Amino acid sequence: MKLTVAEKIIKDHLVTGDLIRGSEIGLKIDQTLTQDSTGTMAYLQFEAIGVDRVKTKKSVAYIDHNMLQTGPENADDHLYIQTVAKKYGIYFSKPGNGICHQVHLERFGVPGETLLGSDSHTPTCGGLGMLAIGAGGLDVAVAMAGGEYYITMPYIVKVGLTGKLNLGVSAKDIILEVLKRYKVVGGLNKIFEYTGEGVKSLSVPERATITNMGAELGATTSIFPSDEITYEFLKLQGREKEYKNIVADDGAFYDEEIIINLDELEPMVACPHSPDNVVSVSTLKDIKVNQVAIGSCTNSSYMDLMKVAEILDGKTISEDVSLVISPGSKQVLNMLAVNGGLSKLISAGARILESGCGPCIGMGQAPITDGISLRTFNRNFKGRCGTPSANVYLVSPEVAAVSALTGYITDPSIYMEDINIFMPERFLINDNLIVNPADYGEDIDIIRGPNIKPFPKSKELGREIKGKVLIKVRDDITTDHIMPSDAKLLPYRSNIPYLSDYCLTPCDIEFPKRAKENGGGIIVAGFNYGQGSSREHAALVPVYLGIKSIIAKSFARIHKQNLINNGIIPLVFENADDFNNIDMLDELAIENMLEQINEDKIIVNNRTKSKAYKLILDITERQRDMLKAGGLLNMKGE
Amino acid sequence: MKLTVAEKIIKDHLVTGDLIRGSEIGLKIDQTLTQDSTGTMAYLQFEAIGVDRVKTKKSVAYIDHNMLQTGPENADDHLYIQTVAKKYGIYFSKPGNGICHQVHLERFGVPGETLLGSDSHTPTCGGLGMLAIGAGGLDVAVAMAGGEYYITMPYIVKVGLTGKLNLGVSAKDIILEVLKRYKVVGGLNKIFEYTGEGVKSLSVPERATITNMGAELGATTSIFPSDEITYEFLKLQGREKEYKNIVADDGAFYDEEIIINLDELEPMVACPHSPDNVVSVSTLKDIKVNQVAIGSCTNSSYMDLMKVAEILDGKTISEDVSLVISPGSKQVLNMLAVNGGLSKLISAGARILESGCGPCIGMGQAPITDGISLRTFNRNFKGRCGTPSANVYLVSPEVAAVSALTGYITDPSIYMEDINIFMPERFLINDNLIVNPADYGEDIDIIRGPNIKPFPKSKELGREIKGKVLIKVRDDITTDHIMPSDAKLLPYRSNIPYLSDYCLTPCDIEFPKRAKENGGGIIVAGFNYGQGSSREHAALVPVYLGIKSIIAKSFARIHKQNLINNGIIPLVFENADDFNNIDMLDELAIENMLEQINEDKIIVNNRTKSKAYKLILDITERQRDMLKAGGLLNMKGE
Repeated sequence: MKLTVAEKIIKDHLVTGDLIRGSEIGLKIDQTLTQDSTGTMAYLQFEAIGVDRVKTKKSVAYIDHNMLQTGPENADDHLYIQTVAKKYGIYFSKPGNGICHQVHLERFGVPGETLLGSDSHTPTCGGLGMLAIGAGGLDVAVAMAGGEYYITMPYIVKVGLTGKLNLGVSAKDIILEVLKRYKVVGGLNKIFEYTGEGVKSLSVPERATITNMGAELGATTSIFPSDEITYEFLKLQGREKEYKNIVADDGAFYDEEIIINLDELEPMVACPHSPDNVVSVSTLKDIKVNQVAIGSCTNSSYMDLMKVAEILDGKTISEDVSLVISPGSKQVLNMLAVNGGLSKLISAGARILESGCGPCIGMGQAPITDGISLRTFNRNFKGRCGTPSANVYLVSPEVAAVSALTGYITDPSIYMEDINIFMPERFLINDNLIVNPADYGEDIDIIRGPNIKPFPKSKELGREIKGKVLIKVRDDITTDHIMPSDAKLLPYRSNIPYLSDYCLTPCDIEFPKRAKENGGGIIVAGFNYGQGSSREHAALVPVYLGIKSIIAKSFARIHKQNLINNGIIPLVFENADDFNNIDMLDELAIENMLEQINEDKIIVNNRTKSKAYKLILDITERQRDMLKAGGLLNMKGE
Repeated sequence: MKLTVAEKIIKDHLVTGDLIRGSEIGLKIDQTLTQDSTGTMAYLQFEAIGVDRVKTKKSVAYIDHNMLQTGPENADDHLYIQTVAKKYGIYFSKPGNGICHQVHLERFGVPGETLLGSDSHTPTCGGLGMLAIGAGGLDVAVAMAGGEYYITMPYIVKVGLTGKLNLGVSAKDIILEVLKRYKVVGGLNKIFEYTGEGVKSLSVPERATITNMGAELGATTSIFPSDEITYEFLKLQGREKEYKNIVADDGAFYDEEIIINLDELEPMVACPHSPDNVVSVSTLKDIKVNQVAIGSCTNSSYMDLMKVAEILDGKTISEDVSLVISPGSKQVLNMLAVNGGLSKLISAGARILESGCGPCIGMGQAPITDGISLRTFNRNFKGRCGTPSANVYLVSPEVAAVSALTGYITDPSIYMEDINIFMPERFLINDNLIVNPADYGEDIDIIRGPNIKPFPKSKELGREIKGKVLIKVRDDITTDHIMPSDAKLLPYRSNIPYLSDYCLTPCDIEFPKRAKENGGGIIVAGFNYGQGSSREHAALVPVYLGIKSIIAKSFARIHKQNLINNGIIPLVFENADDFNNIDMLDELAIENMLEQINEDKIIVNNRTKSKAYKLILDITERQRDMLKAGGLLNMKGE
């Protein structure tokens, strides 16, 4: 059988199921990663599972989100993760070592292996031919405990790259082009597999920019072949032994195919407030910029920042622009410090932030009120930057750097003629901010700060589900809407009771109060509910608030699984128009729940309006069992 | 007449009064500086005064405090300051350019001139023979408008330095020794003037460490002579034309004299929770450290950080320590980037923060709950670091760096033998983050974000002052107690109504509510009320809350002036024991206020207890006029 790259890796890791599109498969997970904002919860869940050592080949716990540390909560969480990692056999990447995806690409990712991460941008490592998938914390906890990870066998989209990028056009523009074509819902249950001669001209970090931001398509993951370019990258990282050639077989079957001619690509920009709101830079005229932010797991590699350094070399940024740069890793920062790139950035007037997620997750550098911020990041959801009225544009490092000089959104093409950047002869390797786990059996005290509260658990499924409609929300609600994540809230990621007062408040400030007053209830939503970040808190907090079911026109992949894992029933309107027939505070009831849970169609009664609607419960048998038990952890406990 | 260095500069700048200790003098101010947390209010006050251009030789507005920018408030305030600076003839130092005191020392300070700054650590420039004084924002606004600055002619303390520092002992240990002897109240109305052969072995940045932290003595300022070492420093900064030799005359009169033999000095540490709680490092044993923070306006110079870089070179910090470093300025950061020092820091595992105040003012890097943090800063007041239960120790960069390696508070002496650091041949000069003011008359729009609210003004003095005692507080209450300033509150420095809900809450969480319910009232306090930061908000917020008078055992200098400037009457118990005879919520009244204000002694009646107390009103005629008018701005308006 002729296989694609993704199929080959899936086949190698199949525990249950077959390579049949749309069917459920269980995958063996080789590696896991967590970051700190999802990590505390994932490790609390791992502890609840009760194994005494991780069963993966390698698990790494990163600190990259909560690094401002404006109160003791963050440092307390870091120490909890550090001690739990040491005890259970997990590598711990200290704050300052870099963004999980960048560091994992540099130091840990292995072609042909599987990686499950509690961060939606885990597909970054697809850039080196790894099957890397983002998931909720509980799924990652289960994988660390040796359990398989279940997904719907994805449809595979062949993205053929032809030609070669023009000056001023970069990998970021490729993924923006894909987003322009597929939009933020177009990737559901798909893997985007890149191929063609254009692939040969892209370095691993460039490939990783593309697979990283594939998350914005809602895709299961994105992947590149593992080829000689992969080998070169691993060799420069001193890891050539981990190389394995993995390319698609001639004649492999793809479910869809698109072609992007790199020669024709222009510098692109995703306009406010969605990553798929893509136009070419040349169509935007005279947009004055207040802030330029370079970094994030999408565009903070050595090559990205060296390009910026060369563009800025000897120049000064616009007086009206604040330019902030967050290097992707300690390795990147240190290489720039050694080779003079950093000095060029500093001399031009850049503010150098820590190696971490920083402004991309709203941890600092909020723009001015009504400000225009140009960012090399992956998301521009309204308010995510910390300033509700700001307009965020997503661009490549080239566009960002040139625009910082001119003060306006600017096409970089003509500025790039003298800019030449090459991969270094060797990356600077120094893993001394990675703390190794203790030897097996060593007695390690786990230190829990006062901010670390227990996580909420659902109860097993009852005979009837009923409750009021507590909120009705529109299409494309992100997990940032469901559980906002600004600099004031991120420090409380291990404190669900605290967070509950902010659930869905960007949509309706009264929602938490209403949920509490009614002892829980039901959420009604439009298409693509739960897109964006993988944050499990968007399920855990609703559990805490007593949400029993969410009825939507459709769900985003990771969030749907997070709901099921935590015992919330994700139902889809058979007739999307029924959305319009339900009003807030209508009393809904699903009778005979214990029987209906076994069906694909479920009837919900609107007792207020004396109507009934047909809903679809599109889940697997395993997921049905999970909902019956009241979530995955209850099932494991049986 | 034989004069000291301070007397020479004062004499050159006398507008009113004479060099008679304890008498009021008015000084012409050559330069001013503001930072952003006090600056927005100072510029609002400057606008209220209504001149069309600053009258100083040079005024500089720095952004160094609110750089985390977790919401739009900070960037909005920065833009307000940037536009107001441009309009009125003020140089604007953009965020990223560094800490005001470090940058001012490098680029603007001039020997023999006067500098007034809205930051208590303004005396830093005393390190190059400048008379540099911290003051409230309104005083700085008046100085920018051409008004003189009034102080009590200080007593002058001669600090004779003999011998030479041993390896591992540094300038920080000199000022810690002075603090050990004089304590945080010992400097009131004094200038500490350093002299003796030991002065010759201290570079300007080392001298600046000493004058900077002289603020913790409560002193008016501290000063070094301007000598060949000053010349060398200015020359390395390309500013030798601004050099002027200023040394004390032989036979000049000093009010007090102490001698510090540098040979005998050991590495010191200020233990929690006061900068004068000083012991030698060798007396502390086995104190495990969670965090080490290097930087702040006290110890973030090129030489400081190069010492740290050399100590850490080729080593790795303790696995259990988080080491954060905030370079003092863009110049410092860039020089380290160019000469390899930065790479040594990064390689060893340091987290490099922005050039700014950062953790020193609680803007990030709060330690773990109950954590031990070792800091090269100037203040260790309880809770200032962002973690109420943390213990902060103040040390030199040497002690900090070595302790980061060992994980315990460690005497650095034996580690210093191979460490050799020299002043560079030239500092890297690049002022492109300093925005020049517009030409006079150019039309500049001042942009005010929604966070910028008007400042409160007092009314003119009434016939009687009466009110309830709203709170009784102990000795040594800092302006951090009166107006807390953590990462959550600092962004609201231009929003007095918002801040008012946090006034004095570290002492009593109910105080703001009580003040509002009672329509204002009176505060009763112990010795040294209002020590620490110069923040005028510790007066402005009480004005907003209706505080009419504060009755204390004694006041700190800057705060007392801030109270008078804003129309709050600072009264001192003639008999300190009367403090014990007043209870919370007692009804106090000062009758015939308009007559009594002209006296040095004032009678207050306790109507609840039917008692009367004698209070001292130790102010000048000018200050009496100010209180009658209801504050300085009301007086200017007449």
